[in-house]
This record gives sequence, C-alpha cells and structure tokens, in this order.
Amino acid sequence: MPKRSFGPKTMVFPHPVFVIGSYGQDGVPNIATASWAGICCSQPPAVAVSWRPSRLSYDNIMQRGAFTVNIPSTGHARQADYAGIYSGRAGDKFEALGLTPVRSALVDAPAVGEFPVTLHCRLIHSFELGCHTQLVGEILELEVDEAVLDDQGRPDIRKIDPLIYASGDRAYYGVGELVAQAFAVGRRQG
Amino acid sequence: MPKRSFGPKTMVFPHPVFVIGSYGQDGVPNIATASWAGICCSQPPAVAVSWRPSRLSYDNIMQRGAFTVNIPSTGHARQADYAGIYSGRAGDKFEALGLTPVRSALVDAPAVGEFPVTLHCRLIHSFELGCHTQLVGEILELEVDEAVLDDQGRPDIRKIDPLIYASGDRAYYGVGELVAQAFAVGRRQG
Repeated sequence: MPKRSFGPKTMVFPHPVFVIGSYGQDGVPNIATASWAGICCSQPPAVAVSWRPSRLSYDNIMQRGAFTVNIPSTGHARQADYAGIYSGRAGDKFEALGLTPVRSALVDAPAVGEFPVTLHCRLIHSFELGCHTQLVGEILELEVDEAVLDDQGRPDIRKIDPLIYASGDRAYYGVGELVAQAFAVGRRQG
Repeated sequence: MPKRSFGPKTMVFPHPVFVIGSYGQDGVPNIATASWAGICCSQPPAVAVSWRPSRLSYDNIMQRGAFTVNIPSTGHARQADYAGIYSGRAGDKFEALGLTPVRSALVDAPAVGEFPVTLHCRLIHSFELGCHTQLVGEILELEVDEAVLDDQGRPDIRKIDPLIYASGDRAYYGVGELVAQAFAVGRRQG
C-alpha cells in the first residue's frame, strides 16, 4: 500500500492521557491534562511531562518542585477533557469537577482521589525544547486503587481502564483485548 | 477503595510500543523496541525516546544523528517483542524478522516498510537522566499507509491498530472502543 506524507506532525499511537496535579502559590490545588508525556528513565525512576511555559501548571511545578501524575479511567473522560481545555487561572478545577484533592504525604502536590492510579513526583530536571519545556519528575511512589489490582496483586490495565488519546481524529479510546505476553511472544523457539 | 503503595515504580497506563530504526557504523539497518518514549514538543515537533547507553541503537543514533519511529500493529506483536529482546549486535533483526528496511529520503535512518506509521526524525538533543539517556528527535515527516486512513483522510487509530504495553502484567493490548471526542466532551454547557 502506498504511504501518504503528512509533513512534520506530532502524531504517535497511542498518546497517554495524564492528569497532572500541582499546588498554586496560594495553595489552591490544580489539575491539567497532558498527553506529551511518558516514562523516561528506570533509575532514578522518572516521568517526563511537557508544558507550554504559559500554563499555570508549569509555574506551579517549577515553584513547588513537585507534581502528581493521575491516570483517569474512561468514566472520567469528561473531567480529563475539561482539565485540558480550561485554565486553573479561571477557577478551581477540582471544585468545578467534583474531584477530591488529596495532599501527597511525599511531595508538595495534590493527588486526584477518584482516579485509580497516582505517581508522586519530585521535579529533578527541566529541559527547554522550544514552545514546550519538559519537566522531569523522579517517581517516589506509585499508588493504585486496590479495586483495580489483578488476582496476583498487580495493577490490571483492563480494570484501570485508562483513556488513550488519538490525535488523528482527536478522540479518546479505551484499551482493547490482550494481544500477547511481552518478553515472551518474540522469543526464539527451541 | 483503599490505595496500595507500590514504591518507586515506572508504571503508567498506557505505555506506547515504538520500534526505532537506525543505521550502524557498517550501514546495517537496526530496529529496537522502546516504550519509555513520547511526543515532547509541538514547535519544533519532537519526540523523545530513552535508551540505556549500552544499547546499539544509542550508538547508532548518536553517530548518525537520526532515527525513525515506527508503529507496529497488533499483528506485529511477535516482531516488536523480538526487536526489544535481542540486540542487533547478534545479527540483523530486519533479516531475522522478514521486515523491509526502507531508506528514509529525509534522514540517515531506515523505516520499517511493513509498519503502518513512521516518523522521520533528526536528533536535536540528548539528556542524561541516570541509567537512561533521552534522545530527542525533531519530527521532519509523518508517513502513514493509505490503508489506515479514515474517510476524511486522517490516520485512524482503529485501522492502525497499534500495540499498547501494560507494565503491570507485562503484556501487549490493542486499542478498544471510542469513548468520546476530545476538546468537546469536557466543554461547559450553555
């Protein structure tokens, strides 16, 4: 099949949907949704999230040196989308969305109480890339709802039911069927 | 529901599955699978992929200043997994997997001919983070198989059928159902 060229587009499949928690100067908790993000190091365990410096979250994270990465379920699509559209400068998004800010015991940032997965992160790097600056957080702790663990006590992606963002049709999708075990299906036989 | 603490784990949902193309010093094309990766900037359009410096791909990309990001479909799970398990130092993975290296017209790196999506990238930054170094590539072009476009000519995530990696049970999943339109479902009413 022939290929079509789309020019220099920031399109990969899948993009994640992370809802990032931070505190403002006045102590108001804020959330903002980010898809330009991902794990970036195993030791120290770290996650990178890119921000336009005009965003309130950028200021908050730079000032407090901390953030949380909260992973919404498909049932939270409206809240995740809202948190990406509107600025915390216009009002408290936790309050507007009926979500609970839970003070992290480890870092100076709020977790989203209703979401099944939270990473508690301490800012360790900022890299200016152009219109975005990448903020890298050391992951101090992964917290997961007991309701979304599998029978071996591991976080179960089917129960977490995270959102996936597709930049082609600008839509959210869920996770589908199990395809294969990793580090197994590709092993040489015999 | 109570939360369970897992300590400092590099676990988010979803992780992407990208197969990165590069050329070795001897001109042998190589692929390696990466999930510690994601879009990191809109202008310049850029994607970040983290590598242990011991990996052949790291040397290749640093020397050639270029790489491709190739996105496998669920039908390529075996190849994607193989490309993540074995090193190109032990043999040509394109050849072992029956995949076609296609020389990029834009950068000094090979694309995977059989995969539906390729980003052609020029190395613009390297950031040492610890055991991983993040290599940032400017996206010069997105190429997509015409067979996986929707009726409006946009890349269709359901037809691309990309792999998702779940680090909880270390397994690959597919993409599920449409949940909602982004930048729409969260808009205030009225």
